[in-house]
Amino acid sequence: MMADLGVGAVFVCTEPEVRYFTGFHTPFWQSPTRPWFVVIPSTGKPIAVIPSIGSASMSATWIDDVRTWSSPQPHDDGVTLLVDCLNEVAGPGTRIGVPMGPETHLRMPLGDVDLLRSQLGEFVDVTSIISSLRMVKSEAEIAKHQHICTIVSNAFDELPHLLSTGLTERQAFATFRAEILSQGADDVPYLVGATGPGGIADIIRQPSDREIAPGDMLIFDTGSTFDGYFSDFDRNFAFGSAGQAAKDAYRAVWDATEAGLAAAVPGATTTQVFGAMNDVLTANGSLGNDVGRMGHGLGMQVTEWPSHTGSDGTVIRENMVLTLEPGLFWEPGKAMVHEENIVIRAAGAELLSRRAAPDLPII
Amino acid sequence: MMADLGVGAVFVCTEPEVRYFTGFHTPFWQSPTRPWFVVIPSTGKPIAVIPSIGSASMSATWIDDVRTWSSPQPHDDGVTLLVDCLNEVAGPGTRIGVPMGPETHLRMPLGDVDLLRSQLGEFVDVTSIISSLRMVKSEAEIAKHQHICTIVSNAFDELPHLLSTGLTERQAFATFRAEILSQGADDVPYLVGATGPGGIADIIRQPSDREIAPGDMLIFDTGSTFDGYFSDFDRNFAFGSAGQAAKDAYRAVWDATEAGLAAAVPGATTTQVFGAMNDVLTANGSLGNDVGRMGHGLGMQVTEWPSHTGSDGTVIRENMVLTLEPGLFWEPGKAMVHEENIVIRAAGAELLSRRAAPDLPII
Repeated sequence: MMADLGVGAVFVCTEPEVRYFTGFHTPFWQSPTRPWFVVIPSTGKPIAVIPSIGSASMSATWIDDVRTWSSPQPHDDGVTLLVDCLNEVAGPGTRIGVPMGPETHLRMPLGDVDLLRSQLGEFVDVTSIISSLRMVKSEAEIAKHQHICTIVSNAFDELPHLLSTGLTERQAFATFRAEILSQGADDVPYLVGATGPGGIADIIRQPSDREIAPGDMLIFDTGSTFDGYFSDFDRNFAFGSAGQAAKDAYRAVWDATEAGLAAAVPGATTTQVFGAMNDVLTANGSLGNDVGRMGHGLGMQVTEWPSHTGSDGTVIRENMVLTLEPGLFWEPGKAMVHEENIVIRAAGAELLSRRAAPDLPII
Repeated sequence: MMADLGVGAVFVCTEPEVRYFTGFHTPFWQSPTRPWFVVIPSTGKPIAVIPSIGSASMSATWIDDVRTWSSPQPHDDGVTLLVDCLNEVAGPGTRIGVPMGPETHLRMPLGDVDLLRSQLGEFVDVTSIISSLRMVKSEAEIAKHQHICTIVSNAFDELPHLLSTGLTERQAFATFRAEILSQGADDVPYLVGATGPGGIADIIRQPSDREIAPGDMLIFDTGSTFDGYFSDFDRNFAFGSAGQAAKDAYRAVWDATEAGLAAAVPGATTTQVFGAMNDVLTANGSLGNDVGRMGHGLGMQVTEWPSHTGSDGTVIRENMVLTLEPGLFWEPGKAMVHEENIVIRAAGAELLSRRAAPDLPII
């Protein structure tokens, strides 16, 4: 694939790409201080060009060639070491593959990007190589997804016994997070949700001290992890009672998910999957949504390529792990979003999450 | 400050900067799909240029001007909207302030960065503006740091009652994470640690299934959060017994921290603080360390500017929140790192974390 694009080497510098090619797994990336690089030559194993603090951890992976410098060193934070490495494996002036497209970024100062470019051959976008590899999962990766999806399904099943009116949102979040961890998740990096009388407006919120009241609706959406692989699905609940319009909206997104499950087969496109779900929402009086898509890839990040949109057009392949996430506004300012996780097999979609109840659960 | 650098507007696009200027707080940033921008005009309030999925949350902040587009839209993911906004507030061709220096990056595809640059005036690095603002905390920020540091101190104090030989590292991590949450933390985004016979080599590891054995040493280092503000300190323990060399190394880093506490006064530099700690380590036979610094700023990220290094030279100011983190190798491959969190007051350093015991605790 690199030869097809005419690049002599690729370098990557973000957490998922470095982990994908090396197995290096640490939350240390949350510190923005130090850049980390992995060079992928046209033949042979990847080479790590990293701060010395990561030397012991990186040397425990399958990588043999670990080159380090003492970081932070703002006047030359790995730039010279990276240039030397790229020149060594690809030759000076060779075109260098760099992810430059959708869903990527370079995790290093823009000033250092400019410096790198002035010392290397032309940068060529290799997003298509990285995404085509990462979108199709191995059985080992799928097993990790299945494990964490089962854990989170179990935790969602316990929620009706754990939550009640009178709890604050903050208490409800803490309760759910603790339940997911006690079920066996390594971490709950992504947890958003909201409560609201008769429905909710905003699905990416952090908790407030608002108390849950009878007649409220609640959404929790979590990306939890096991061994660095994510689940990403949500569930909706009502407390005490729910209006017919809310119940109908819930059923509409559930039915839309059924259509998505049927459409997500090898050879179909993400645009066809989007269309199948969107048709059901439209037929049920959707006022649109503000999410911009109806699901996405899932893997080492809570969202990955591709997106189910009206124009994405990615061909779905066996062993892709995807979410189906139809959403609608059923009244102005009242959103209903539903999400399941699936793996694509030869015969079609298989659920990784335990399918939500067809009717709005009332606690 | 913008006028001094001759920039007509600044734009930022990373989580801490967007949150700093707007109050927008969500873990949604973990999804790499959509870029988010905030424009800071030379006069008046910041302007949010964001995907429509964030509209409700952003409109709940102090920001009045929220401009949205439906994202993902790979052919023009906010670029035109951002260019239009910058042209409107700064005028076409004006120099634009962008963080381009140490500890920064642009969280958007490099292809889109190139597109932006072709349509705007020269980019000027404003890292010094952003870092000088963020490094000095308000009393409200300091109160959040104090709160989470107390919570984590309480959790560390419980550890001797919760851990024992026979537990696996994975179980020990889960136990500690649950204890921090039950003490009242919102989240434990950063947790690293390791166990090893007689000492440990690697302080940024994720847990294995290795069982803790008598004679082991354990380090836990956590960045936990309350309302989006971090603690970041570690503690070391031995199980059953410890050798004299390990005890001496523990005492050396504890004594080095004392020297750091005395040196961290307004008007001193980070290099002087580094020197004070490093002198103690050297006098105690340090074989060096691979961390690259001996502490750093603390705030909305687990590490922030500045760094205590031999060349950083940042002048320490009142209301900075910092870590002191002396570390050494006391045998080849055996590391001892100690960390405390402090706030700088007129009279000197005040501890935010509860001071570690002067002698190695043995469980």
